[in-house]
Amino acid sequence: MPDDFEAMWSALAPIGRSASSGGYFRQPFTTVESELRGWFLEQCAARDLTVEADGNGNLLAWWGADGGADAVLVGSHLDSVLDGGAYDGPLGVVSSLAAIDLLRERGVVPRRPVVVGAFAEEEGSRFGIACLGSRLATGSTTPEAAQELRDRDGVPLLDAMTTAGHSPVLGRAGWVDRIGCFLELHVEQGRDLVDRQAPVGLASAIWPHGRYRFDFTGDANHAGTTRMEDRHDPMLGFAMTALAASKQAQLAGQRATFGRVDVAPNGTNAIPSRVSAWLDARCESDAELVRLVAEIKRQAMERADRDGTRVTVTPESVSGAVAFDPAVTGALSSGLVERWGDVPVIPTMAGHDAGILAAAGVPTAMMFVRNPTGVSHSPEEFAETADCLSGVEALADALEVLVA
Amino acid sequence: MPDDFEAMWSALAPIGRSASSGGYFRQPFTTVESELRGWFLEQCAARDLTVEADGNGNLLAWWGADGGADAVLVGSHLDSVLDGGAYDGPLGVVSSLAAIDLLRERGVVPRRPVVVGAFAEEEGSRFGIACLGSRLATGSTTPEAAQELRDRDGVPLLDAMTTAGHSPVLGRAGWVDRIGCFLELHVEQGRDLVDRQAPVGLASAIWPHGRYRFDFTGDANHAGTTRMEDRHDPMLGFAMTALAASKQAQLAGQRATFGRVDVAPNGTNAIPSRVSAWLDARCESDAELVRLVAEIKRQAMERADRDGTRVTVTPESVSGAVAFDPAVTGALSSGLVERWGDVPVIPTMAGHDAGILAAAGVPTAMMFVRNPTGVSHSPEEFAETADCLSGVEALADALEVLVA
Repeated sequence: MPDDFEAMWSALAPIGRSASSGGYFRQPFTTVESELRGWFLEQCAARDLTVEADGNGNLLAWWGADGGADAVLVGSHLDSVLDGGAYDGPLGVVSSLAAIDLLRERGVVPRRPVVVGAFAEEEGSRFGIACLGSRLATGSTTPEAAQELRDRDGVPLLDAMTTAGHSPVLGRAGWVDRIGCFLELHVEQGRDLVDRQAPVGLASAIWPHGRYRFDFTGDANHAGTTRMEDRHDPMLGFAMTALAASKQAQLAGQRATFGRVDVAPNGTNAIPSRVSAWLDARCESDAELVRLVAEIKRQAMERADRDGTRVTVTPESVSGAVAFDPAVTGALSSGLVERWGDVPVIPTMAGHDAGILAAAGVPTAMMFVRNPTGVSHSPEEFAETADCLSGVEALADALEVLVA
Repeated sequence: MPDDFEAMWSALAPIGRSASSGGYFRQPFTTVESELRGWFLEQCAARDLTVEADGNGNLLAWWGADGGADAVLVGSHLDSVLDGGAYDGPLGVVSSLAAIDLLRERGVVPRRPVVVGAFAEEEGSRFGIACLGSRLATGSTTPEAAQELRDRDGVPLLDAMTTAGHSPVLGRAGWVDRIGCFLELHVEQGRDLVDRQAPVGLASAIWPHGRYRFDFTGDANHAGTTRMEDRHDPMLGFAMTALAASKQAQLAGQRATFGRVDVAPNGTNAIPSRVSAWLDARCESDAELVRLVAEIKRQAMERADRDGTRVTVTPESVSGAVAFDPAVTGALSSGLVERWGDVPVIPTMAGHDAGILAAAGVPTAMMFVRNPTGVSHSPEEFAETADCLSGVEALADALEVLVA
């Protein structure tokens, strides 16, 4: 008898949780991730699902129609941002397993295989590229590019994977060709469903999203003896740029965040020689993203000129707008209406593996579960259990539409 | 035959030097510091100086008048800021040893003991309190306070000392009572001596100096899905404060620097929950320091109010203005005039162990060696060898004034 939703949730709760903040540190290719994978393998074994590791860190658990194609992929990811919440990722994996249980209880025998995916490094919290696992599997990131990736301690990706007990074979994965459509369930990361008083919703599109490293460089010097007018302090360029990014995004109704900073030498009594900071920018359209980042960069360079410092901007990952598949989304919408009424169809400003598979040509849809505060990427991230269970029911209903 | 100045300098050059930046990482209670101490002990042995370790990490090497009081202390420190220069600290230690050689060559038999000091953690680069060794030895920092100190990795001071082979007995040191005056030689950290075309100078005073930790706290959240107007992003408060500090200091002809930042969780796609940043502030007078820091704090709090974030300010170390001893400085000035002409007497904006001993009632003076660029706390810090050798000669001449 496999665990039900709540038992699965309880088993996951302590893994990678910080005793001080209550947040999660579930970084890929760590002992915490090994525990998460162990949990996943156990749950799949209890359900007689056949698990495949694809060499990119992703796990795929197959139900029915052995070796068949045109499979329906569900699932999400188990990793978290640094000090993140419990729901972003794991809710989709746990709900997918619980939905399979429900379909079996209902006596559904799927015409198409159902696959539960657990994707690696979705958050990019360790190697800096979001959705690394699905990008590698679909070929949108090349193995050559991935082999250059290093974490903050300088550990290369392949070393990290091998140390964590993986057998990495990076690159396009065969399973992708066997997927007919992908439906990712995810906790909502805003309050649209709260406003619409709906426990679940479907996604229309993902906003374009880019990550850009700004390297501000100047001249290290003594913080006491160097006159203000003789300085070339890169911290000032960063500070002005962080404020400018926030202001520009606010004016345009977009998003811009500097949440990660690295200073050298980072000593109290030394003017820095370098401040690196990462801009996370998201806009309603590709053109607006280009315009926003260009404007932030222009202001950064103007300030650097004034300060006698330098700034370079390196895009680390840029994902264009993703429209989810209207046919799949439409079929789900129609299939759910009888039991769930008109399910809201809303955009998301967050990147997801669903976006990567959609961009790779897989017909893709997403389902959201209501988040009462809208808070995400934080220990405070939350969803009511009743809403999570509604999510499982709705996901099972959606799977029935797709596979029965 | 002990090493001469240039041989000592060459022996020190590779210790703790970064191959990539060329800068020095000579943090206290590390294997690099053990190498530096080993070098110091060897040089003292070659000169028949009796070395005393005071339990606070400081080394004192005594020449002549065994056990006598009213000693003349020279020397400086061997540690560096992170990625610092070669001269700040070591120049004083090496010059002091070379000056003893010169006095011996001249046949000087000191009436008073001469002591070469090598002080611990002068830069505060590991435990955050500048001049920690001299503060402990003079009692201006208590052992109880020091025992609470931790480095960035959470290692307590006593553990760090023990691991590095020290036998810590923190607290006021007996040797302080045997010191009649202190003369610290140091590379200049500005360009006053360049403007005055003088290879060496004397110090009039040290500006008041404070280090303050600003903790900006807000609400971690998703960088994509959280609308700009719903955020409580502490990075913005920090950014505004860094710009305000620079502007206020510039307007008032003072110094204010944010050179160290620590962000939590420091992820690209998460709005931070906390940004801690350290203000280094130095002013011409104690009153101006109070005013400058209050104004920066006021602006930080005003911005935090606007952003719905919070900020707390914790002074980590504050040193009042230090006027060096006019009698000692005057005697040196008179004693040097015949050979060196009118030696410039200039203020310094940098803290030094000399300031700590002066504040503790030891009659103290400082001697500077010209720095052609004024750059300090940087791999580019430099002094011409000819000027360093002039420094050794002038220091020997000064010691003759004091001990012959």
